[in-house]
Amino acid sequence: MAGEFSFIRWIQQQQAASSQVLAPAGDDMAVMRWLGDDLLLSAVDQVIDGVHFDSSKHSPRQIGKKVANRNLSDCAAMACLPAAALACVALPRGCGEQYAQELYLGMREALDQFSCPIIGGDTGSWDGKLVLSLTILGRSAGIAPILRSGAKPGDRIYVSGPLGGSILGRHLQFVPRVHLAREMAARYRISAMIDISDGLSRDLRHICDQSGVRAMLDSDLIPVHPDAHRLAQEDGTSALDHALHDGEDHELLLTSPDEIPDLTLIGRVEEGEGVYITRGGQAAPLLPAGWEHRL
Amino acid sequence: MAGEFSFIRWIQQQQAASSQVLAPAGDDMAVMRWLGDDLLLSAVDQVIDGVHFDSSKHSPRQIGKKVANRNLSDCAAMACLPAAALACVALPRGCGEQYAQELYLGMREALDQFSCPIIGGDTGSWDGKLVLSLTILGRSAGIAPILRSGAKPGDRIYVSGPLGGSILGRHLQFVPRVHLAREMAARYRISAMIDISDGLSRDLRHICDQSGVRAMLDSDLIPVHPDAHRLAQEDGTSALDHALHDGEDHELLLTSPDEIPDLTLIGRVEEGEGVYITRGGQAAPLLPAGWEHRL
Repeated sequence: MAGEFSFIRWIQQQQAASSQVLAPAGDDMAVMRWLGDDLLLSAVDQVIDGVHFDSSKHSPRQIGKKVANRNLSDCAAMACLPAAALACVALPRGCGEQYAQELYLGMREALDQFSCPIIGGDTGSWDGKLVLSLTILGRSAGIAPILRSGAKPGDRIYVSGPLGGSILGRHLQFVPRVHLAREMAARYRISAMIDISDGLSRDLRHICDQSGVRAMLDSDLIPVHPDAHRLAQEDGTSALDHALHDGEDHELLLTSPDEIPDLTLIGRVEEGEGVYITRGGQAAPLLPAGWEHRL
Repeated sequence: MAGEFSFIRWIQQQQAASSQVLAPAGDDMAVMRWLGDDLLLSAVDQVIDGVHFDSSKHSPRQIGKKVANRNLSDCAAMACLPAAALACVALPRGCGEQYAQELYLGMREALDQFSCPIIGGDTGSWDGKLVLSLTILGRSAGIAPILRSGAKPGDRIYVSGPLGGSILGRHLQFVPRVHLAREMAARYRISAMIDISDGLSRDLRHICDQSGVRAMLDSDLIPVHPDAHRLAQEDGTSALDHALHDGEDHELLLTSPDEIPDLTLIGRVEEGEGVYITRGGQAAPLLPAGWEHRL
């Protein structure tokens, strides 16, 4: 039966040292050079069987790709460039080395789009189900990182694409908006940004809480994805509610004092707190209904 | 019932920005300054319920401390200084926020010994058991990282302490040898180094494989921990075999052309491959019998 070290040897054949990565996976730690004028950004994100994917339906290639794209989307939300990644996997015992390889190749498929190497990792096996996490390192590369805390009254609120119904498949196939984020940050004054992972209502609240402002959305402006309409027909929840609350769209949600024709305007930042939405001219609080893990 | 975001708010109260960490956990990514003449080292290590700990016996404080110390021990193995860490946890649903807080405080207890902040993380909950991983970033801070690949024929082989029987409790309480590693690296020529996590026989083999050399151990020189003797009385395996094969001692194993009186000499590096041991003047291959995850 294949073991951890055979898998690690296989991984080592998939990668090479570079001018920046002096020692990739295979030692106790990976070693990189870092340009001191680049800020170093870092985040970790996991996918869990039965929560973020279903191992009985989704291929290891899809699962690996999803965890990588979630992390890449965090880079987009900060407008930084992906620099390197480390993977950590708890494998169901007996899944086989090929399954582990497919997870790796799925991550690589996503990360290779941004020339982001996997420089380290940890592999374990157990009687439980699959848990896969990825840590990503990013570099500012000439653009100051965009936090959630900078939104100001008077700013416009934008999203980068239509929302809702990602569960029908897009949660496995979304394109992290790294290039778009950096292009917007280079051309416009972006005061706050986040990627929509927990749902618009919840992620916009993060911006409001951390910026100390209120958001006023206009229900007529919310771009509703065709998948939200399809899902609405199945489950009776309105397409707009899917667009407002569904998670895992991974579109950018940002605020700016500027007019940005490339993005969809959905509302305004005001003084106050919380997230509100106008429907037929009436403003009402929009309570967060997106995803939250219960502890 | 407490949720993920309440836990994240609690974490935010435990930490602060610093001159190096410009934005800690709470945004999409943490932001750090990095000194360009410091090499950036990184690794990830996980602990899994039923494999690395037993949640029915071990407290969340112990579990958190263990995962942090495993990562700190990786820093020791490279002779770097811990700089920052990111935590990722899949929590059993219903474990409660206090349990999650205790995991965090256990990690902090270990990391605070090295002024190493937790700057980011991800929290999920599921129907499975606890999986906790930590990514650690280290900085070379004036000492070139010590790889596994530099051992040369003629080098001496050393360990930093007695081995075996860590399962009796030391696997939860070991002290990562960060300071010792850096002191040795500053005073002596260390050609290769690793921390003993999978067992001496297996970890020494990593050095041999990656350096292209043979190790010749002397059975009379192996420092056997009292716990190995205790365990030998319980299970009939010899104390020496426990010292040779048990994992999770997290002592340093290193090679050097120098005489190092602070450490215990256990053998020599020779031309060839594999790990050998002399018992009563007779050399025989020492097959790896330490821990390996089966996939």
